[in-house]
Amino acid sequence: MALDIINYLSDNAKSMRRSAIRDLLNVANRPEIISFGGGFPNAVTFPVDDLKEIMNELMNEKPAQILQYGSTEGSVALRKQIAKKYEKEGVKVDIGNILITTASQQALDLISRIFVNPGDTVLCGLPSYLGALQAIWSYQGRPVGIRNDEEAEAVVSALCAVGQKPKFIYAIPDFQNPTGVTMDVKRRQEIIDVARKHDLIIIEDSPYKELRYEGESYPTMYSMAPERVVLLGTFSKTFVPGFRLGWVLAPKEIIDRLIVAKQSADLCTPIFCQEVAARYMEKGYYDRNLQKTIELYRHKRDLMHQYLTEYMPEGVTWTRPDGGLFLLLTMPEGLDARDLFDIAIKENVAFVIGEVFFCDGKGQNTLRLNFSYVSDENMLEGVRRLANAIRKLMEGNK
Amino acid sequence: MALDIINYLSDNAKSMRRSAIRDLLNVANRPEIISFGGGFPNAVTFPVDDLKEIMNELMNEKPAQILQYGSTEGSVALRKQIAKKYEKEGVKVDIGNILITTASQQALDLISRIFVNPGDTVLCGLPSYLGALQAIWSYQGRPVGIRNDEEAEAVVSALCAVGQKPKFIYAIPDFQNPTGVTMDVKRRQEIIDVARKHDLIIIEDSPYKELRYEGESYPTMYSMAPERVVLLGTFSKTFVPGFRLGWVLAPKEIIDRLIVAKQSADLCTPIFCQEVAARYMEKGYYDRNLQKTIELYRHKRDLMHQYLTEYMPEGVTWTRPDGGLFLLLTMPEGLDARDLFDIAIKENVAFVIGEVFFCDGKGQNTLRLNFSYVSDENMLEGVRRLANAIRKLMEGNK
Repeated sequence: MALDIINYLSDNAKSMRRSAIRDLLNVANRPEIISFGGGFPNAVTFPVDDLKEIMNELMNEKPAQILQYGSTEGSVALRKQIAKKYEKEGVKVDIGNILITTASQQALDLISRIFVNPGDTVLCGLPSYLGALQAIWSYQGRPVGIRNDEEAEAVVSALCAVGQKPKFIYAIPDFQNPTGVTMDVKRRQEIIDVARKHDLIIIEDSPYKELRYEGESYPTMYSMAPERVVLLGTFSKTFVPGFRLGWVLAPKEIIDRLIVAKQSADLCTPIFCQEVAARYMEKGYYDRNLQKTIELYRHKRDLMHQYLTEYMPEGVTWTRPDGGLFLLLTMPEGLDARDLFDIAIKENVAFVIGEVFFCDGKGQNTLRLNFSYVSDENMLEGVRRLANAIRKLMEGNK
Repeated sequence: MALDIINYLSDNAKSMRRSAIRDLLNVANRPEIISFGGGFPNAVTFPVDDLKEIMNELMNEKPAQILQYGSTEGSVALRKQIAKKYEKEGVKVDIGNILITTASQQALDLISRIFVNPGDTVLCGLPSYLGALQAIWSYQGRPVGIRNDEEAEAVVSALCAVGQKPKFIYAIPDFQNPTGVTMDVKRRQEIIDVARKHDLIIIEDSPYKELRYEGESYPTMYSMAPERVVLLGTFSKTFVPGFRLGWVLAPKEIIDRLIVAKQSADLCTPIFCQEVAARYMEKGYYDRNLQKTIELYRHKRDLMHQYLTEYMPEGVTWTRPDGGLFLLLTMPEGLDARDLFDIAIKENVAFVIGEVFFCDGKGQNTLRLNFSYVSDENMLEGVRRLANAIRKLMEGNK
């Protein structure tokens, strides 16, 4: 006799939403399908030989340490390297302000856990990263969306007026997921001013900042307001995702609470992976490989833009990001990316419907395309197939 | 200006409790201190050469796969090996019933997350593993303790009578942490009968079952009631803790909910670590190393018992476990292990006060001793120092 699971579930569990991305990609994992779906880095960027060298080195040097339990806050060596990275950008960082997490998704989870009560609002981009929305929902929080062209003060004031002051502001200022759009300094300052006025914490999710393909980097929001910004970093896009390594840089009093939350969440992140990453940075391999990765992805972004320009039908537009892994494609109003998905799968091409990133339930005519993962040949063929699918959808809608 | 963090915290965060074990051990990390505190495996059991061989092998064979993102449910190869392990015990297991977790602590967290609402009761051992209590508290659950000699039906009925039916029963049937005590089949059956009668889920936390030093193994509670038992396993004690690998074996409808919770908790467990562990098992190294580990720990348990017998003053008793990593030592009533801890630290020996494992706030005269981690020489010297400290405490109390 099967359990009637619904009778046992917590309200949190009932509020959780299964990742539509993962579900879509499960449909799309036939080998003949070209996928612009996931946010996967390209495997040619994985520093396989460097990693072999370092693993063997560390396994000879200190196996008893790297295979044992680690501390909850994370490897001192790795936190020092991360601090150094910020110092190169001119931001002085103490390792006591850094917590290593089991990649960024855990940081999003722990932050939602320590701040969000059921019913609390969180201000986030419209659209915004699904994993962040999932974390907020899983504690029964309510994401409220703000478009990049809306005035932050107006939105926050309106929420405060109805007793729904946001628990925090969630932002991805650089090469946002899913749009690829970057906030300029004026927009960053505007959001910080609003946060200061209303005494709000800002979560600056920053997985792509180092992957800039043109133009100058903007300062992190953390550097502009270190007293209230929680910066999330990750090694998943610039090193390897398979080690699950990320970090939080935040005021000490927030780090302290995150440590307590992490103790009961998973005790500590694999110390083996942390020590390998630390050595990889110490040796200067990280910076070297990052440059190669940037060159590869710049090329892929340009190629994607070129192919979209060549093949997409009239009326379709897309963002042209200065960095990151994604662009957002918009079809004419009235077309639905869910319908497109069904056609596209038959054409053997996949993507993520944009709707899942819109917490207001809109964005039906948008789709997120990843340009880091597929080979150049597949990119051409995939864009052709996608353009065909969009044409078929348009014709069907006439 | 520092943030007044308390103004931002969720009720969950306010309900979290910092691990007293980690805090105690921070005091005790001077090199001259001999520690019976942590639950660390002995580093001589780490299969360093086997691991080097396998890492190099896999990095040559399929680097693009083991360094990429993995699925939330976990590596198919590893889940197959785990299923095989249970099949050897005569329990047929489908890999769809297995979820890989970032070690057991994450399993405890996800289970509390999907089942526990604020104020919900959970039945657990008195004493019981602190990490489980922390997970329950962090969702504002209320652990209710039951001693191994108390009638389960009486306790559950009493709770139901006051509208506090437990959300689940948490049990560590084999070599319990912190007592080292094992439930016999009769006790297992009694708890299952109660769970069936009241329609309760049972969490069978099983980190030590394979580390049996004498006697015959009892069947898992999962094998006795697969429809309602959630079994937690871990590689932290029988392989390496530094990879953070554990698993949940449970009814499919529970696994499905845990997968959704894990998506927002950390997306997936390091696939690199999972694939290494899978290959390690495929090659038969796991079983071989387990035998060596059992022999080592049996010797250490015997030595600990011998030294305690030789050096402990009259009136002090302790459990003699058939397996696992811990024993619980009890001082005469009226003595407080917190006072002992202060004396012991001066004597350069550390342990964990038993009180932290008692959710009813009792157990002041108990302490948990780990016997797997220290060298034989340090065990002798550590027990001498501890016996001295207890004598000093007894004399001070006269």
